[in-house]
Amino acid sequence: MAKKWVYLFDELDQAASYAGGGWEEVKGLLGGKGANLAEMTRLGLPVPPGFTVTTEACNSYLAEGMKFPEKMWEQQLAALAEVEKRAGKKFGDHAKPLLVSCRSGAKFSMPGMMDTVLNIGLNDDTVEGMIEATKDPRFVYDSFRRLIQMFGSVVMGVPDEPFEEIIGKARKSRGAKSDAELSADDWKVVIQKFKNVFLHHSHMPFPTDPFEQLHLATEAVFRSWNGKRAVDYREAAKIAHDLGTAVNIVAMVFGNMGATSATGVATTRNVTNGEKRIEGDYLINAQGEDVVAGIRETLPIEQMAVDMPETWKEFGQVCATLEQHYRDTQDIEFTVERGKLWMLQTRDAKRTAMAAVRIAVDMVEEGLITREEAVEKRVTTDQVDFFLHPQFNSQSKQAAKAEGRLLARGLNVSPGAAVGMVAFTADLAQSWAKKEGKKVIMVRPETKPDDVHGMLAAQGILTSRGGRTSHAALVARQFGKPAVVGVAALDIDLGRHQMTVGGQVINEGDWISVSGTTGEVFLGQLETMIPDISDPWLMKLLQWADDAARLQVWTNADYPHDARRAREFGARGIGLCRTEHMFFQPERLPLIQKLIMTNDPVERREALDALLPYQREDFSGLFREMNGLPVIIRLIDPPLHEFLPGLEMLLTQLADCKIKLQHARDLDEINELLKKIEEYQRVLKLVETLHEANPMLGLRGVRLGIRMPELTQMQVRAVFEAACQCAAEGIDVHPEIMIPLTAHANELKIQRNALETVAREVMEGRDMAIDYKFGTMIEVPRAALTADEMAEYAQFFSFGTNDLTQMVFGISRDDAEKGFLIDYMRREILPENPFVSIDEHGVAKIMGMAVESGRKTRPDLEVGICGEHGGDPKSIAICHKLGLNYVSCSPFRVPIARLAAAQIALKERRLSQEVRTAKGALVAG
Amino acid sequence: MAKKWVYLFDELDQAASYAGGGWEEVKGLLGGKGANLAEMTRLGLPVPPGFTVTTEACNSYLAEGMKFPEKMWEQQLAALAEVEKRAGKKFGDHAKPLLVSCRSGAKFSMPGMMDTVLNIGLNDDTVEGMIEATKDPRFVYDSFRRLIQMFGSVVMGVPDEPFEEIIGKARKSRGAKSDAELSADDWKVVIQKFKNVFLHHSHMPFPTDPFEQLHLATEAVFRSWNGKRAVDYREAAKIAHDLGTAVNIVAMVFGNMGATSATGVATTRNVTNGEKRIEGDYLINAQGEDVVAGIRETLPIEQMAVDMPETWKEFGQVCATLEQHYRDTQDIEFTVERGKLWMLQTRDAKRTAMAAVRIAVDMVEEGLITREEAVEKRVTTDQVDFFLHPQFNSQSKQAAKAEGRLLARGLNVSPGAAVGMVAFTADLAQSWAKKEGKKVIMVRPETKPDDVHGMLAAQGILTSRGGRTSHAALVARQFGKPAVVGVAALDIDLGRHQMTVGGQVINEGDWISVSGTTGEVFLGQLETMIPDISDPWLMKLLQWADDAARLQVWTNADYPHDARRAREFGARGIGLCRTEHMFFQPERLPLIQKLIMTNDPVERREALDALLPYQREDFSGLFREMNGLPVIIRLIDPPLHEFLPGLEMLLTQLADCKIKLQHARDLDEINELLKKIEEYQRVLKLVETLHEANPMLGLRGVRLGIRMPELTQMQVRAVFEAACQCAAEGIDVHPEIMIPLTAHANELKIQRNALETVAREVMEGRDMAIDYKFGTMIEVPRAALTADEMAEYAQFFSFGTNDLTQMVFGISRDDAEKGFLIDYMRREILPENPFVSIDEHGVAKIMGMAVESGRKTRPDLEVGICGEHGGDPKSIAICHKLGLNYVSCSPFRVPIARLAAAQIALKERRLSQEVRTAKGALVAG
Repeated sequence: MAKKWVYLFDELDQAASYAGGGWEEVKGLLGGKGANLAEMTRLGLPVPPGFTVTTEACNSYLAEGMKFPEKMWEQQLAALAEVEKRAGKKFGDHAKPLLVSCRSGAKFSMPGMMDTVLNIGLNDDTVEGMIEATKDPRFVYDSFRRLIQMFGSVVMGVPDEPFEEIIGKARKSRGAKSDAELSADDWKVVIQKFKNVFLHHSHMPFPTDPFEQLHLATEAVFRSWNGKRAVDYREAAKIAHDLGTAVNIVAMVFGNMGATSATGVATTRNVTNGEKRIEGDYLINAQGEDVVAGIRETLPIEQMAVDMPETWKEFGQVCATLEQHYRDTQDIEFTVERGKLWMLQTRDAKRTAMAAVRIAVDMVEEGLITREEAVEKRVTTDQVDFFLHPQFNSQSKQAAKAEGRLLARGLNVSPGAAVGMVAFTADLAQSWAKKEGKKVIMVRPETKPDDVHGMLAAQGILTSRGGRTSHAALVARQFGKPAVVGVAALDIDLGRHQMTVGGQVINEGDWISVSGTTGEVFLGQLETMIPDISDPWLMKLLQWADDAARLQVWTNADYPHDARRAREFGARGIGLCRTEHMFFQPERLPLIQKLIMTNDPVERREALDALLPYQREDFSGLFREMNGLPVIIRLIDPPLHEFLPGLEMLLTQLADCKIKLQHARDLDEINELLKKIEEYQRVLKLVETLHEANPMLGLRGVRLGIRMPELTQMQVRAVFEAACQCAAEGIDVHPEIMIPLTAHANELKIQRNALETVAREVMEGRDMAIDYKFGTMIEVPRAALTADEMAEYAQFFSFGTNDLTQMVFGISRDDAEKGFLIDYMRREILPENPFVSIDEHGVAKIMGMAVESGRKTRPDLEVGICGEHGGDPKSIAICHKLGLNYVSCSPFRVPIARLAAAQIALKERRLSQEVRTAKGALVAG
Repeated sequence: MAKKWVYLFDELDQAASYAGGGWEEVKGLLGGKGANLAEMTRLGLPVPPGFTVTTEACNSYLAEGMKFPEKMWEQQLAALAEVEKRAGKKFGDHAKPLLVSCRSGAKFSMPGMMDTVLNIGLNDDTVEGMIEATKDPRFVYDSFRRLIQMFGSVVMGVPDEPFEEIIGKARKSRGAKSDAELSADDWKVVIQKFKNVFLHHSHMPFPTDPFEQLHLATEAVFRSWNGKRAVDYREAAKIAHDLGTAVNIVAMVFGNMGATSATGVATTRNVTNGEKRIEGDYLINAQGEDVVAGIRETLPIEQMAVDMPETWKEFGQVCATLEQHYRDTQDIEFTVERGKLWMLQTRDAKRTAMAAVRIAVDMVEEGLITREEAVEKRVTTDQVDFFLHPQFNSQSKQAAKAEGRLLARGLNVSPGAAVGMVAFTADLAQSWAKKEGKKVIMVRPETKPDDVHGMLAAQGILTSRGGRTSHAALVARQFGKPAVVGVAALDIDLGRHQMTVGGQVINEGDWISVSGTTGEVFLGQLETMIPDISDPWLMKLLQWADDAARLQVWTNADYPHDARRAREFGARGIGLCRTEHMFFQPERLPLIQKLIMTNDPVERREALDALLPYQREDFSGLFREMNGLPVIIRLIDPPLHEFLPGLEMLLTQLADCKIKLQHARDLDEINELLKKIEEYQRVLKLVETLHEANPMLGLRGVRLGIRMPELTQMQVRAVFEAACQCAAEGIDVHPEIMIPLTAHANELKIQRNALETVAREVMEGRDMAIDYKFGTMIEVPRAALTADEMAEYAQFFSFGTNDLTQMVFGISRDDAEKGFLIDYMRREILPENPFVSIDEHGVAKIMGMAVESGRKTRPDLEVGICGEHGGDPKSIAICHKLGLNYVSCSPFRVPIARLAAAQIALKERRLSQEVRTAKGALVAG
């Protein structure tokens, strides 16, 4: 017996048993559209009779040199006969001609595949029959000309232009504004001309034989699988090339047969806000394409309740059935032919982030799906991200584009939309924002630590240089500021306070709009809309996520207000407080500079004593916000020269002074200049001494703590004084001291000894006991390789995967991201940016070794990750698999991380359950 | 029964059976001196009767609060009785008084322990008896005053000064020039005064009871184990503190009993050149200390053949017996008392490097030891190193020190001695050396790649900055140039062409002498001596080493003359040819600069075409020298900016020009300056573009090859053109192309594909087939972690442990070695410099992973190491254990590496044999 290539819509069970699996396999065989039509048929919903030619037939056709597989055509004819029987019509029959549509339908929805051909079965003869039956010659001729055009363009590749031209001329000669004004006779003339066009371009006459029409249409669908657009799309979307497409042949139904006919589209719930209410549009006495084309104004779907109450009732039941069955909001096409409802398509509806969250939560509460399913499958982390950042209103964006106000695109490094006036310096940005209440976008070639006050005051950040983990990008993400970086097209002239892009000059103070979500930069002010994190459905979903997750989500926060926000977002601790950020504040920077520049122990002591109360207050603030939760405080990390002016700037300033000195005539001025030169030379000498060829690998982290023990001792003193003070106020404090950049266990030993002594001193002096830990960053490969030794002195590990990635790859992030790394990703030498998602083969491997050997030494070792990767869902999945206790990320990533942590836990649980079930089945079998 | 604390010299078997092991255990119990005295006794050699109090007794004494262990003193008395019996004398007896010496003797020779006390047993009474017996009152009184002084100083801590003062006065009052002129009566007076000094300082009279003398001397030896000097020495030499010292009590024999008595020291072979001939000094009618003290002129030992032929014959036999027994050259002390030879000490003789090699080889040929033992145990790698570098003659050095010409000390980074005139620039060094035939020492604050021509022309290199792996140190070691770097005391004023050190000004052209072996810098010219690598004994030893080794030794060589030298030194291949060194040569640098600076494809092509023949000649030269051996050529590695002038220099020059411009009045000059400024600005812009925050982790290695494929393609073309050309001449060529700094297998894949295409093109064009390989450096941690993937595209791995160590530790070598790393080693945070010896816990671990997983993919993967560690014996041992195929090091380290490779192989074999033997014994038992 020949293989079965064709399945009637009511042969779903046969198809499923042949496909030998679940719904995915059925979709693989029948395509998404065909499977859903069959499924609706099985549910007893009103689907016009029809059948599906399988994807296997397509694959065979393509493999065998464009030959239908054996018996396929015969099976199609048999199925068609069955359809004729059920429709009570006959294909090619004069009196009661059956018309069918022919559509492609692959497993995954895929642009670039063949479009629909409607009305197959019409020819000069059946047209006559149809006219007799419908008494509506205009409708029938219109249908016929559509067939010729669709068939020509879709099946034979005839261009649309000659067809459009003919219609245009016909309208003109009639003085008609729209096609609707053309009469049956007009269409008759058009049809003749269409046939000529068809002949001219196809070198064959329009096929009058309905079976030939069907044959050719089926072949065209098959061939379209290997069309260039389809292949390109599959490449880009990583869809396998051997899936093939199915072909769906469905008996035509008509919504344009008078006042009791209609056609429409609907979703079973509101896909914008998620409300449980059918939403859609429909038209009475119209065909499907008219609803989409916008020729006539559509009616809101609830109008059906008035216009055709019976059908509305039935429609409501159909929607309910579909939701019950598919357990998700459906996107539906339907037609009413003389009062009879026909379902033409159903599929899971696309929806906004807000709708996705509300629908998921509502469906749990309606009992349609489980909490686990809602958390794992119904909402993506990107959708949660949406809640955290304002976005440009899409109308406003489209208008701006139309007006040519899209200036450039760059890297979308921190999502959200921002509108403001261009400010080219941090000071100006701060003064405009703070003193004048202006909205500001800070624009710089790139940013540095002493630009942070300006960045904080700005609405958004725009730079012409730098990559995804440049300073600007990191700070922006940390503070949830929309940012676009690396916009190479921007030519910033700081001297003139202006920038040029594509010949357009933008001055300081001009308005621009920046989308950190898309990387777009617009001229002028676009409208924004702000979603809401306190959305009750989101809160509920994330609560369920926390219940499901194994990984906790902590946050990186340096200031109390960050801590507060992160806690609101659900953070369960602070995984990283970068104490050096505190040193960059204007009143503190001179103190740390003095500390670095003096050799006088008294001056050092004074500087440290002056810094102590600042740090103590910093920590008190954090402890108060995080009452009851752990707070990991990392001791000073960056190289000292970061606190001093740059070499190049000093050299330039020194040269300037010397030139000025050549011209100076006034004695006071000369003295002034000489003094300046001396000071510059002094600083220059120190900067030269501190200069390192590779500062990333230089005197920083624990090395600094060992070199300048007074500094880290001051920090630890501040931590414990703050902790004691807060504890005395009744706050529940859990400080954890983290030592950065360790490479050898001895570094940890020596630092911990020195620092724990200070901690005990403070606690004993106040007769208090604080619950504390000492631990280390694992960010140097050697620390990971010798984790067993590190764990002897560390009560916790926190992976610093930024630096670890840099060292494991031998890549300097800042240099590489504006250089070869971009090229590497473009050429797919690297599958993805390892600074965005943890590199699984290299970095994750060494992390895994560290977790395992660290816990061998200390089974209760607390292990986490801080830094950018902690907020990346792929990386979170890796952290889950490696058995970490928590991930720590910037406050604005916390909700995303909570969902990601839950999703990987649920996925793991589900898969292991599936394995168990399969094993059970095997045993039972 | 009480434990045995005391062993007579003829109780060695009992001691050995108690110690329960081999010779090491016996030495542990009896100390080195005691064990050797007992061993000589067992061999039937003439040793005076005596006994040893064990190290265990010492430990017990110290542990039990300075109490002799139970029965120890009784055992000492019993042993003493036995000694009395054999000596036919009695301790404390008037008529025939036995005198003994008391000496400490730990397992390892150790300064800071108690010295000898001779003549124990003398008091006023026994002195009288001795005088009666010897008829030599002067000798006996002299002996007594020595006992009082030695006992006072050594046992009671009386200072030497009052004793010396008394003798001085006695000499003065007698008008005597030396002690020898003092009479017996003079000594009698001295003895009385000595007793008073003893009483005054010890608060007790000099003990007249010989047993009390012995008791106190024994205790003093025990206590000296915990003396400050001894403890400090053990700390420094890493000797365990719980070994304890033994005490040796020996019957005194006297070499000063007339013309048939004598005393002397000898070695059984010449310890300077290794000749097989007894060497030594002796004195007739003298006591041991007189030989050492240099009061009388000693006689060469062969004079004994004339003076006392019988004893000489016996002495020769004793020496032969000792060599036969100890299987090594012995260092001997002896006394002849009235024609009777007594052996007082024997131990393995210290020797020069030359002697060590010759003795080892001779002894193999004499059948005394095996080749394996000679290679593994008789010669150290440091001794082989000695052969490769000139050294200062020690008299000349002592004289210079005495004259205050030792200027400073720095890091001894490249061994050998060099004498020359100071030159402060590379050009001057080259011109003086090449054109004027002067010997030059190049002195710089630090060196750079464009100083290399001056360094090559110089005798030696001296810098005031930089560490063990600074540019100067690396280049110096590479070319075997003696070098001292990081001499912080040097203040170099390049502008004035002079340097200052400790207030002394040294001008360009002044002579200095630099020892890269010791790190010393001298003013003036010291005499040097040059050992000889072609020493036939060394050649033979290294041949045996090669037979024993599992690891091959290859060399790092960039130029044919390096390759030739390395081959003479025994290299079996080139493991690293750094092609970029070739680009720094004056005629090529402009070409590579042009290549970097132009965007014009024609100019690029021209630059590449001009470089190609140079590179081809470079490689031809190497292939010719290495006929039949593999040559690994590494493609260009360093960041491009290394080929351009430095940013700081450019900025300074630019500023200078601008200042000059302010003053310029002449139009030509102004135009000239403007042109210069423009050019500087152009280069500056490029340098700024190429500037990287961390160049070590930047655009270099394979990243460069991927960015500028024409450059590496030119290099590979040059390699294969040279290979074909040489092969056509009948040379056996084996090029291996090495791709540096890979981190991901895709980099290797893409580069290898592109380059192998070029290789095939060249070979096909000439219709030749060359035996070649493609491989990669493993120097980025990720490459090691993903070695299984790398090995898919690499036919060989070569560990670049310099960079690997930098990345595994997160340490920038150049920065760290002049900074915190020194401090880390001083404080023992790091046990040793990981850039000198491979870090076993971190770097070696990841290397081991790479070897294992690389060979899993490709079982015949060739694995080696290039770079500094390849010449370090400790690192070579690690490479052996990791199963590498070869180590590659600079030519001057090749002989050392050959020995080191053999030593670890032999050690491994020996240990596994010992384990097998032990297992066998267990089974048999």
